[in-house]
Amino acid sequence: MTSALKQAMKLALIQLRVTADKAENVQRACVKVKEACEKGGANLVCLPECFNSPYGTQHFPEYAESIPGKTTDAIAAAAKENKCFLIGGSIPERDGSGKLFNTSCVFSPNGDIIGKFRKIHLFDIDIPGKIRFMESEVLSPGSNLLSFEIPVAEGSSKPIKVGIGICYDIRFPVLAKLYKQQGCHLIVYPGAFNMTTGPMHWELLQRARATDNQLYIAACSPARDESAGGYVAWANSSIVDPWAKVISQAAEDEAIIYADIDTSVVDNVRSSIPISKQVRTDVYTESSLVE
Amino acid sequence: MTSALKQAMKLALIQLRVTADKAENVQRACVKVKEACEKGGANLVCLPECFNSPYGTQHFPEYAESIPGKTTDAIAAAAKENKCFLIGGSIPERDGSGKLFNTSCVFSPNGDIIGKFRKIHLFDIDIPGKIRFMESEVLSPGSNLLSFEIPVAEGSSKPIKVGIGICYDIRFPVLAKLYKQQGCHLIVYPGAFNMTTGPMHWELLQRARATDNQLYIAACSPARDESAGGYVAWANSSIVDPWAKVISQAAEDEAIIYADIDTSVVDNVRSSIPISKQVRTDVYTESSLVE
Repeated sequence: MTSALKQAMKLALIQLRVTADKAENVQRACVKVKEACEKGGANLVCLPECFNSPYGTQHFPEYAESIPGKTTDAIAAAAKENKCFLIGGSIPERDGSGKLFNTSCVFSPNGDIIGKFRKIHLFDIDIPGKIRFMESEVLSPGSNLLSFEIPVAEGSSKPIKVGIGICYDIRFPVLAKLYKQQGCHLIVYPGAFNMTTGPMHWELLQRARATDNQLYIAACSPARDESAGGYVAWANSSIVDPWAKVISQAAEDEAIIYADIDTSVVDNVRSSIPISKQVRTDVYTESSLVE
Repeated sequence: MTSALKQAMKLALIQLRVTADKAENVQRACVKVKEACEKGGANLVCLPECFNSPYGTQHFPEYAESIPGKTTDAIAAAAKENKCFLIGGSIPERDGSGKLFNTSCVFSPNGDIIGKFRKIHLFDIDIPGKIRFMESEVLSPGSNLLSFEIPVAEGSSKPIKVGIGICYDIRFPVLAKLYKQQGCHLIVYPGAFNMTTGPMHWELLQRARATDNQLYIAACSPARDESAGGYVAWANSSIVDPWAKVISQAAEDEAIIYADIDTSVVDNVRSSIPISKQVRTDVYTESSLVE
């Protein structure tokens, strides 16, 4: 592979320490975005799920904001200041009708909101004796996918395309498959798995989506904080390549991790193991594929 | 969980040492089936992919047989003698028109062939500098799924349902999903990954299918033999539970591994993390799901 063929950009995931102090969370996020760009050379930066608020149904109504609003204004300014694409993790959003959503905004390097993604699959699970969480008690689900393109180099004919999901959305293979069909090279999931589902499925689901769709997967969590007494995030933010190899992973503390996202790697795995061309549409019944 | 609710049977995977001597392979398979049932108490036994022949396109025409034929007659007798359900791994099959297939037969405890599964997705990959293999140069693909039921106890209302795939079929999520929709609790893949794709994807794909479909996955490989100079199987036959935990795994040598298959575990994970009930068919476009 020659460097001329390399079509890469640098992704940074900010595994932010999130506290009960919203203003501090947002300010800290902006400082870390600057660090990721200035020191790390990132072109695309991602914040974690629920980065301006503790994660919990009791907190969402209190911390929720409209979009645009105070939090997104600050993050937009950070994107503009650092001239990066920025996936604003997610925040609790209150829309005009008073409904709450778990929402990720994507910002361009000039600080515009490119798009808004509301978590499609709400996190409702009940593992007896381990964890019960019902996002749907206070949140409403979104219904739209969001993908966007990042130009790699002046005159490049092949921008890098990125899809967005939030946390529990990663459990649904169909969402990743739809992004692949849209031409995405990378899917980014701001997410906050917990101390039960984290060790079981966090890395597995990322590697599963990577290998089945032959693209990059990134998942960005808040840092782990066992002192606060609430929901404890598993952390372990990760970037997985299209071969399903974990190429960068944080531990439990606050950290920024980086990886090059290179579309030629996507092309290589797809030509080596050409599963997309080998599907047997003569065998499967299309209508049986959605449950 | 009370024992009265437990609906279990014992699965055995035979990680067979396969040589160039067909008669010896078949005889050895029968001896191991007996061991799995008599010593291990298995109700369902599985042999590996291509258990009567070295794995390679140059070998398939020479080793191919009709079904029924000498190999399946011997395996049928082993099922009958040991009163077990038996998934006869796979063998190269020659049909009436002279076409070759990679075919798995399933036998009942009275020695009847319950069904025949021909590998649907042929193994055609080319990873430069690592491995090139083109099954389609000599084999034709199958076009039909195969699942069957095993009664668990006298008068039980809930038999254990098992689906079959072969090796490369595991790379296609749709096949596993279709088996889930048929009500399968377990999918068994006789398979022979290699020293390149094995360490990358063998266990990952099993765990991915298990977690996305919330059922048991088993994959049964030939033992590893680096001395023969041909295709080297990764081995590491495994059984994965519906939580995606590897509950039994062989190393590289000949071995028999066992696990209880318990439908109550399937029910538990599905009620704890109810992804099947949370799919957003209002969001997805059905027609976009098959590439």
